[in-house]
Amino acid sequence: MDSVTIFYSQENGGIIANMNEEKLSAIRHSLAHLLATAVLEKYPDTKLAIGPVIENGFYYDFEFPAGVSITPEDLKEFQKRMKKLTNKEEPFVGREISLKEAREMFAGQPYKLELIDEFSKEGQTLTAYTNGNFVDLCRGGHVNSTKELNPDAFALTHTAGAYWRGNEKNKMLTRIYGLAFETREELDAYIAHQEEAKKRDHRKLGRELDLFTFSDLVGPGLPLFTPKGTAMRDAIIEKIHGMQKKFGYHNVSIPHITKKELYETSGHWEKFGDELFKVKGASDTEFVMKPMNCPHHTQIYASRPRSYRDLPIRYTEATAVYRDEQAGELLGLSRVRSITQDDGHIFCTIDQIEQETENIISVIREFYESLGMWSTEGSWVSLSVRDLETPEKYLGDSTHWDMAEEILEKVAQNESVPYKRVSGEAAFYGPKLDFMFKDALGRERQLATIQLDFVMPTRFSLEYTDEQGKRQTPVMIHRAIAGSLERFLAVIIEHFAGAFPLWLSPLQVKVLSIGAAHKEYAAKVCAALRETDIRAELDDSDETLGKKIRNVKLEKVPYFIVIGDQEMADEQITVESRDQRKIGMMTVDEFIRNMKAEIAGKSKQW
Amino acid sequence: MDSVTIFYSQENGGIIANMNEEKLSAIRHSLAHLLATAVLEKYPDTKLAIGPVIENGFYYDFEFPAGVSITPEDLKEFQKRMKKLTNKEEPFVGREISLKEAREMFAGQPYKLELIDEFSKEGQTLTAYTNGNFVDLCRGGHVNSTKELNPDAFALTHTAGAYWRGNEKNKMLTRIYGLAFETREELDAYIAHQEEAKKRDHRKLGRELDLFTFSDLVGPGLPLFTPKGTAMRDAIIEKIHGMQKKFGYHNVSIPHITKKELYETSGHWEKFGDELFKVKGASDTEFVMKPMNCPHHTQIYASRPRSYRDLPIRYTEATAVYRDEQAGELLGLSRVRSITQDDGHIFCTIDQIEQETENIISVIREFYESLGMWSTEGSWVSLSVRDLETPEKYLGDSTHWDMAEEILEKVAQNESVPYKRVSGEAAFYGPKLDFMFKDALGRERQLATIQLDFVMPTRFSLEYTDEQGKRQTPVMIHRAIAGSLERFLAVIIEHFAGAFPLWLSPLQVKVLSIGAAHKEYAAKVCAALRETDIRAELDDSDETLGKKIRNVKLEKVPYFIVIGDQEMADEQITVESRDQRKIGMMTVDEFIRNMKAEIAGKSKQW
Repeated sequence: MDSVTIFYSQENGGIIANMNEEKLSAIRHSLAHLLATAVLEKYPDTKLAIGPVIENGFYYDFEFPAGVSITPEDLKEFQKRMKKLTNKEEPFVGREISLKEAREMFAGQPYKLELIDEFSKEGQTLTAYTNGNFVDLCRGGHVNSTKELNPDAFALTHTAGAYWRGNEKNKMLTRIYGLAFETREELDAYIAHQEEAKKRDHRKLGRELDLFTFSDLVGPGLPLFTPKGTAMRDAIIEKIHGMQKKFGYHNVSIPHITKKELYETSGHWEKFGDELFKVKGASDTEFVMKPMNCPHHTQIYASRPRSYRDLPIRYTEATAVYRDEQAGELLGLSRVRSITQDDGHIFCTIDQIEQETENIISVIREFYESLGMWSTEGSWVSLSVRDLETPEKYLGDSTHWDMAEEILEKVAQNESVPYKRVSGEAAFYGPKLDFMFKDALGRERQLATIQLDFVMPTRFSLEYTDEQGKRQTPVMIHRAIAGSLERFLAVIIEHFAGAFPLWLSPLQVKVLSIGAAHKEYAAKVCAALRETDIRAELDDSDETLGKKIRNVKLEKVPYFIVIGDQEMADEQITVESRDQRKIGMMTVDEFIRNMKAEIAGKSKQW
Repeated sequence: MDSVTIFYSQENGGIIANMNEEKLSAIRHSLAHLLATAVLEKYPDTKLAIGPVIENGFYYDFEFPAGVSITPEDLKEFQKRMKKLTNKEEPFVGREISLKEAREMFAGQPYKLELIDEFSKEGQTLTAYTNGNFVDLCRGGHVNSTKELNPDAFALTHTAGAYWRGNEKNKMLTRIYGLAFETREELDAYIAHQEEAKKRDHRKLGRELDLFTFSDLVGPGLPLFTPKGTAMRDAIIEKIHGMQKKFGYHNVSIPHITKKELYETSGHWEKFGDELFKVKGASDTEFVMKPMNCPHHTQIYASRPRSYRDLPIRYTEATAVYRDEQAGELLGLSRVRSITQDDGHIFCTIDQIEQETENIISVIREFYESLGMWSTEGSWVSLSVRDLETPEKYLGDSTHWDMAEEILEKVAQNESVPYKRVSGEAAFYGPKLDFMFKDALGRERQLATIQLDFVMPTRFSLEYTDEQGKRQTPVMIHRAIAGSLERFLAVIIEHFAGAFPLWLSPLQVKVLSIGAAHKEYAAKVCAALRETDIRAELDDSDETLGKKIRNVKLEKVPYFIVIGDQEMADEQITVESRDQRKIGMMTVDEFIRNMKAEIAGKSKQW
């Protein structure tokens, strides 16, 4: 067998082998038939629904006879039966059948009969595929023979309830899921990857590290951030704020609602009206929750006359936007209804775009370097341009688009970022640079973004007076460094498996007293650290030191300090680090100096 | 005449003389009759509506003959005629009249006829009052004679349109407003006060100093904060954050919406359901915008088991709440729909209440001292307790209320704050300490607050495990230092008339270059200041230094730096202050050191 390059698809953590996709699909499809064969062997009265191929495998939906409930033991048995079938060398044979024949063939199968009538009404040809004694209504796409199926490269994994045709008014069926690959190595790699992903799951780590919570009373998709999670959010915002200070950004602050007229003007109402949260009070005015911040920010720009001397004007704000995601699509912090954007908008002249964009890239570079995520293998930039074949998807005039795409490409070259031109990925108002990073599990994540916009300034009639006293329209640049804080946190919790760099750690150091006599000094040390804004906690409980250290390791705190007799006598502290390295004794001041150096990304003295 | 103490009523800037209130009302009422007399002298065909006494004066609503529109000149003439009438010594004489007589007497006055019929239907006695030739339908309450009216103690001020009976379906009438007092000194004092208030109006200063703006597209009551206004907001939040750091507060972060179940549990739904903004997306779930933060914060507390060792737990967050105020009640930043609360909630044991409350008072004291507003004449604390006669207004059991009120009173005594027990001002969940301050115009403002709450922890079933391993309910303390940031900004903009203390100034220093040769050095100085987070701006325009300094004074910037030949040669800067004092030449480092000292509330070296 040819060697297979394995890579991971964006966002879903799924594995795709770049072998013959068609063949892999045939394997999975064939295994779905084998699953149904095995099920009918054991429970002949089972009603069959459908059994499609999915990413990494397949599933089949069954209505089992009354009283039968499928256990993990059943899955093992079905899997065993399937393996046996793969040894039999039975061919998959298909043929066209008439409506009448089909009705007779699937007489005891109500779901199949429903499909047969439907296909027939649509004028579709009906086909049936047979392997051994089993026959299924099916459009084909199998391996030639069961012998081609590798018995060690598939596994039944779990069951779930699923309504017939996804409609909750229909009967609830039992869905059996299977993984399937061409080789055992691929299956094992996928399972190992999934187990690692499970360990790193930000929902699990978020709970264990006490970073955020959800409440049934507040509702799904609406995370509440605990002190530790908020410390991380604040650290991210502060980090970005510090990095872009030298470029002249200013915080602004806007309300979370607006009259819909704002979005009618911006063009968002027409494009996204249905996805917006509508707000209604006692009065007649109808409000909308903001799903983005740019239109509000234009109103601050528009609040007074601007001259070329004032430009660029750079607004930044970390503020929540609200989007109504379907409950079923919500997932931890990855997909939420309240989204905190680390947002920024620059209003400038056309001549200033290049410098401003370079400044933003320099902040993005510095920020992701502080996370060790810049220029790692697999990180790249998508130069997201319009699709010239669907001009109706974009607003604004084509010469502006040409210019904007050219400027972004030039900047990407100047800044030596590895970029690819991706057609059709532009925003409706302009082209973008989207920064793609690879996480520790090889999953590609889009985080930072820079977007040029010639459209919104025109729609809001924004103006400045140029050197000649003439009125001109400014350009708008949208930018995000971390992107949505929720999604960013989900990504980096999983990337670091909770062991964050010092500057980002919710808890940076824990002070452990050995015995009762050391509590007071330990408390003093902890207070001194906090006074300098180091995130420190005290453990002066009566647990053993061993237990306290184990707790610190579980919490993945970068440093801990041990206080005993020696430390008190010398007025020093013993410092150890998360990676089990004992750093040694030093004064509190020395420790603070080194912590501050590491937090600022400078070199430490130990 | 007796000497009169003038004081200002809370919130409205109105003046009240604590002389005989009845007499003042009689004066104002009588002057309303004189106004109508004067109007009819000039326009005999005018239809009269009503002319009541209001705070500081009176008004009268008229329907003038077609084509007549009242100008400031008319007001002057009416006022002159009224003054003449006060010299005439005509008595106000009243008598009962029958319905028939009344109808004849006011035959040409449709509004009076409508009132006559209405009063008559209600079984009221009808009375008419006469002065000179003028007669009005009136219940009485006049001075004895026009002679008693001081011609120098009243003034007609302005007109406004007003619907008959306040109903927009009725005819629009012309309302003429007058001020009236007993003495000319009172009138002058009131007018001077109003002029000062107008100069300090935060809406006017907010525009001039570019602190915030409103947008027609975003909607009324929804301020957008510019970079300068946001700098003030951030400075306030940071100041409070720094002051309470030593007491162990932690930032948390919550979404702005929730399912209504949260408020059904807290009890707010029943009490405030109608005032809430309802939120509806594409899905079935109904959300509400949060009008307060406490219920959300309870859910963070409730997210894991708590032990007595964890308490007190202190959450703090500056976050926006939303309340649907009627459009007509909105007023600049004083009354808005998006309200940023500098909120905090402490969960603690009963034994910890006293210490926690004292800690909060110490933060409030330090914060208002940094504004020079602590312990000024007229500042006091309202110990807001329940009204024992209306127990149905309060939730929770009465022994808890007794205890809570006792603790707050004890703390107020311990902390030596001047307090008054105010019955009936408690929140529905517990008693409060409300901190009242007097602004530069003598207006009383309620800003900080501390509220004890035994109710909400019970309703949310909050728990902690005590030393004996038993489950206990914690107490909740609600606290705000600045209160709503919007309202706080409105108050202090007016209090300081825009000339803020250094730490709060949106712009702390402006760097002025004298000539073209000094621009580069000036820019370097400005960048060095910004690098240390001093809010500095550069004016390197080609204006004269005199013009630049005038601008700085208009902007009320605390300090400015002048850069010319001498400064460049010596590598120094010349510093001057807002109060016109030239401070002298120094190095940039020396200036930064002194700025940092003043910002931190420490003494400067110059």
